[in-house]
Amino acid sequence: MELFFLGTGSGVPSKERNVSSLVLRMLEERGTTWVFDCGEGTQHQILNTTIRPRRIEVIFITHLHGDHIYGLPGLLSSRSFQGGESPVTVYGPRGLKEYIDISLRLSGTHLRYPLYVEEVEEGLLFEDEQFIVEAVSLKHGLESYGYILKEKDKLGELQPEKLKALGIKPGPIYQKIKNQSQTRLSDGRMILRDEVIGPPKKGRKIAILGDTRYISALKEPIYGADVLVHEGTFASDETQMAYDYYHSTVKQAAKLAKDAEVEELILTHISSRYQGEAIRQLEEEAREVFENTRIAYDFFQYQIKRN
Amino acid sequence: MELFFLGTGSGVPSKERNVSSLVLRMLEERGTTWVFDCGEGTQHQILNTTIRPRRIEVIFITHLHGDHIYGLPGLLSSRSFQGGESPVTVYGPRGLKEYIDISLRLSGTHLRYPLYVEEVEEGLLFEDEQFIVEAVSLKHGLESYGYILKEKDKLGELQPEKLKALGIKPGPIYQKIKNQSQTRLSDGRMILRDEVIGPPKKGRKIAILGDTRYISALKEPIYGADVLVHEGTFASDETQMAYDYYHSTVKQAAKLAKDAEVEELILTHISSRYQGEAIRQLEEEAREVFENTRIAYDFFQYQIKRN
Ligand SMILES: [Zn+2]
Ligand SMILES: [Zn+2]
Repeated sequence: MELFFLGTGSGVPSKERNVSSLVLRMLEERGTTWVFDCGEGTQHQILNTTIRPRRIEVIFITHLHGDHIYGLPGLLSSRSFQGGESPVTVYGPRGLKEYIDISLRLSGTHLRYPLYVEEVEEGLLFEDEQFIVEAVSLKHGLESYGYILKEKDKLGELQPEKLKALGIKPGPIYQKIKNQSQTRLSDGRMILRDEVIGPPKKGRKIAILGDTRYISALKEPIYGADVLVHEGTFASDETQMAYDYYHSTVKQAAKLAKDAEVEELILTHISSRYQGEAIRQLEEEAREVFENTRIAYDFFQYQIKRN
Repeated sequence: MELFFLGTGSGVPSKERNVSSLVLRMLEERGTTWVFDCGEGTQHQILNTTIRPRRIEVIFITHLHGDHIYGLPGLLSSRSFQGGESPVTVYGPRGLKEYIDISLRLSGTHLRYPLYVEEVEEGLLFEDEQFIVEAVSLKHGLESYGYILKEKDKLGELQPEKLKALGIKPGPIYQKIKNQSQTRLSDGRMILRDEVIGPPKKGRKIAILGDTRYISALKEPIYGADVLVHEGTFASDETQMAYDYYHSTVKQAAKLAKDAEVEELILTHISSRYQGEAIRQLEEEAREVFENTRIAYDFFQYQIKRN
């Protein structure tokens, strides 16, 4: 499971940073890819990666500002053109459905795959075998959400030495034992899975937030996240500006990361006023508050480890 | 006056060619820039040029397919963000206004300059001191237009040797003589401008067409154009495919250029199936019919000379 940053700038594209988009690749875990925001040129960025649009399963839109959605009609169209057939669900604020419907209809675009657009509210978005996904409300002058992904714990690994100690030889029986809570062997013995399996693999927690003012109360929903992706549009000497424009400073993001005791903070949505050395300074500022901070850049990849 | 090709591919962006956009720069003639079509990533392409979005005065949309319009909301927004203040007029087919309005409204975008959207029909679009601009209907399965720009003839240059022969010395009087059809000198003599001025500078004619099937009747409106920009989506062995998908082959475009006796044909909207050597072959095919043919590529610039 890895994060792949496609666009890490704010407002308008620059030569250094494209507008917002972030991909969560779960090829091993799920065989699919989730996308968070889709600014103009997201499909162009994808051309320079190994990401396959046909693998996209869900697109989460944090808010409807142009730098987060203007790449959506193009990505959806090109995915169809390139042979994508599996369904795609897009989650996002009210108005998203109208935007997508009208863009596709007026351009005469007919997708060859089912597209579902779900306008969200705060709370549970969906739950399946692997994930619980929730939306939290942010403060950005218009409807804006953060998405909290909780991966469910997975069964531990079978412990071959324990099975061998019980005199069970490797074979199809191993899979059977793993698949059910108890298994009767041909010799009549009953094997309890809990006795031959290692500790469960703890599910990861990932918090990806849209543009927002600093909100201390977010500490609770994102508590203990393995990774927090937060905007860091401004340096801390622009706290008033950040407030006025409904954005955060890197230090505010770091404060939240610290209070929520997350493992790692990744800052994105960086204003184009910061370049080169100024970026290093942003990182330093944030690290004074929360050590495990990185500033994202376009094509930055981050492996999400289990703890 | 020069054409600057920003996107010369068809359908979806590729690493080699972006989707459609073409700029006509008239910095000397008019101090402004006109844009023809605006596929996704047009503003990104512009970042790699000396084109200034604030100079954009008119945007012509040939048709509403996504690869011709999905970059429009982003370009309009960024122009505002970057301080563009002069008005912009966008011409295009019915539905364009709804597309722009909804994209800007739902994304909470407030432009800091006046934006006029004019839905066009075949015929005269506008006329001013420099240009007459007309739209012609094409065949593309949905409303599609070609735009014919006729530059008006300009006054010739004053001929200093003729003025000197009349005993008129250089000074502000020269400008006066040029500005009016007849001028009375301080010594009472009347000078007719026509007698001291060179031949008029002939206005240029530029035809920029959207996606279309081959239409032999276009010969008339584009007759004698200094440059014809025509789609050449397919090679001539795909004539049936071109017909079925409402496109043209390069040979069909060349036939039209020949029949219309244009000076130069530039082919664009090239299918991504053609690369490298295949592009050279496309050019050769077209040149068998019409010698002065070029295949456009992204960032190709073409100076439009007067004849
Ligand atoms: Zn925003
Ligand atoms: Zn088209």
